[in-house]
Amino acid sequence: MIYQRVALIGLGLIASSMFWAMKRGGLAGEIAGYARSEATRATARRIGLCDLVCESAAEAVIGADLIVLCVPVGVMGAVTAEIAPHLKPGATITDVGSVKREVIDSVSPHLPDNVHFVPGHPLAGTEHSGPEAGFAELFDNRWCLLVPPVGTDAQAIDRLQKLWEGLGSNVEVMGADHHDLVLAVTSHAPHLIAYTMVGVADDLRRVTDSEVIKYSAAGFRDFTRIAASDPTMWRDVFLTNKDATLEILGRFTEELFALQRAIRTGDGDHLFAYFTRTRAVRRGIIEAGQDTDAPDFGRGAGR
Amino acid sequence: MIYQRVALIGLGLIASSMFWAMKRGGLAGEIAGYARSEATRATARRIGLCDLVCESAAEAVIGADLIVLCVPVGVMGAVTAEIAPHLKPGATITDVGSVKREVIDSVSPHLPDNVHFVPGHPLAGTEHSGPEAGFAELFDNRWCLLVPPVGTDAQAIDRLQKLWEGLGSNVEVMGADHHDLVLAVTSHAPHLIAYTMVGVADDLRRVTDSEVIKYSAAGFRDFTRIAASDPTMWRDVFLTNKDATLEILGRFTEELFALQRAIRTGDGDHLFAYFTRTRAVRRGIIEAGQDTDAPDFGRGAGR
Repeated sequence: MIYQRVALIGLGLIASSMFWAMKRGGLAGEIAGYARSEATRATARRIGLCDLVCESAAEAVIGADLIVLCVPVGVMGAVTAEIAPHLKPGATITDVGSVKREVIDSVSPHLPDNVHFVPGHPLAGTEHSGPEAGFAELFDNRWCLLVPPVGTDAQAIDRLQKLWEGLGSNVEVMGADHHDLVLAVTSHAPHLIAYTMVGVADDLRRVTDSEVIKYSAAGFRDFTRIAASDPTMWRDVFLTNKDATLEILGRFTEELFALQRAIRTGDGDHLFAYFTRTRAVRRGIIEAGQDTDAPDFGRGAGR
Repeated sequence: MIYQRVALIGLGLIASSMFWAMKRGGLAGEIAGYARSEATRATARRIGLCDLVCESAAEAVIGADLIVLCVPVGVMGAVTAEIAPHLKPGATITDVGSVKREVIDSVSPHLPDNVHFVPGHPLAGTEHSGPEAGFAELFDNRWCLLVPPVGTDAQAIDRLQKLWEGLGSNVEVMGADHHDLVLAVTSHAPHLIAYTMVGVADDLRRVTDSEVIKYSAAGFRDFTRIAASDPTMWRDVFLTNKDATLEILGRFTEELFALQRAIRTGDGDHLFAYFTRTRAVRRGIIEAGQDTDAPDFGRGAGR
């Protein structure tokens, strides 16, 4: 057991997966949970999510050795203000937000000096959300990035790292600004691009929605999966990782224009060289073990 | 049995999958094959791909009731010129190219009057290519679009439709220009966008390739799969479906700029409404049976 008592604030995909994975690994004594919506709390009680579902965030954190903020990035500060007076001295508080500089800036001012703040970000998810979306295997062999501000207690970091390792993750520590840039490239910009392409398809009047849907076997289908993620979460990601996302999108547009020009002028050599280079990046990902090489990803046909 | 003798010209992912699926369904008597590269022919002989691997395309088509052109769109015309003098009167010739107007324009002029040309496009694929990439289930429950020019023999169309149904596909008939627009939306533009994003990530100097690869759990990983497809095939797709692709990319850029502006100005309502709408498109695709609703697509963690 790594923590005697854990409080999960917010009970969506990540929190519910953490609960099941903590139970799987015997990593926590008692796990309390809180969600703002009464419907979510009722669902949690029905499916046995959390040992104790509380009626307020303040109640949930009482006596907790670890508090995990699993709410959208945009409300992390407000939730922290609410729970701050009730935190146990020596407790560790962490989060699972996709943006780290903003979380540090909005959470830190509310915290008492006698708690340890170790922001975190598990790089795992599906396009599903809510308390019933979680499963114990979500974090297995995925990365979890910890982004502790300079001067954070080393023991508190180490203990949280052990928790994430117990949940199945590989853990790495990095600075908040670098985290936000890396994520802008690997996740935030790709999500915005996927959202955009799905929106364009939906808008186009000469191709019906039902055609787009029927014939989306390749390419577009993968975009729709990305573009189906939780709208609240993603709104907050873009509003709070604004600079890095806009920088990457600027680079993307520049590059896209160059490829459009190659198409327009019929420059096949440019296209071929570009596509050959991107294929190599894919090979690197498979070799790094972040995806499977199986054809069609074992989706099976049409299921 | 639907065709007594079939010739597969080009032995990549699609042709090899057609071979295994025709054998599975007992749809063809003898299946001859030809590939331009000697190495591919040797591989085909080694793995038992085709009943007969020929040393020339002309030899492969002799006596064939159905000829399937499985070569890149850019060489369809040249291959047709080569085989045209050897085609059996009354034979059907089809192709599997991703662009249809260009194939019709480049293939038709070479064909004798006594053969039936029924262009086709199976909407199925993986990011793998080559003779060893094929498998019998590739077309199961996927769409195959047939795009016969006006006046094509109805019986020839019907027979080819029965073959594709035997291969596991659902078949629909449409016009070539509409096909090219639909595919620009659902496949060609998304592929170019994915290629671009992967290229941007690879270029960015402040984030290392190994970081991009390590942390590509969501979003970017799906792009790399798309961007790993065969460079020759995709070069030809963009060069031959130029107008429709450029039109969709123009709309895409316009829309992306609007979302970038919303991020820059902090217009959360605009973002939230947009993301909610795209989520609904995804639901439509799942309901249409073109993808699975399973979390993480059954990829499993880290495999």
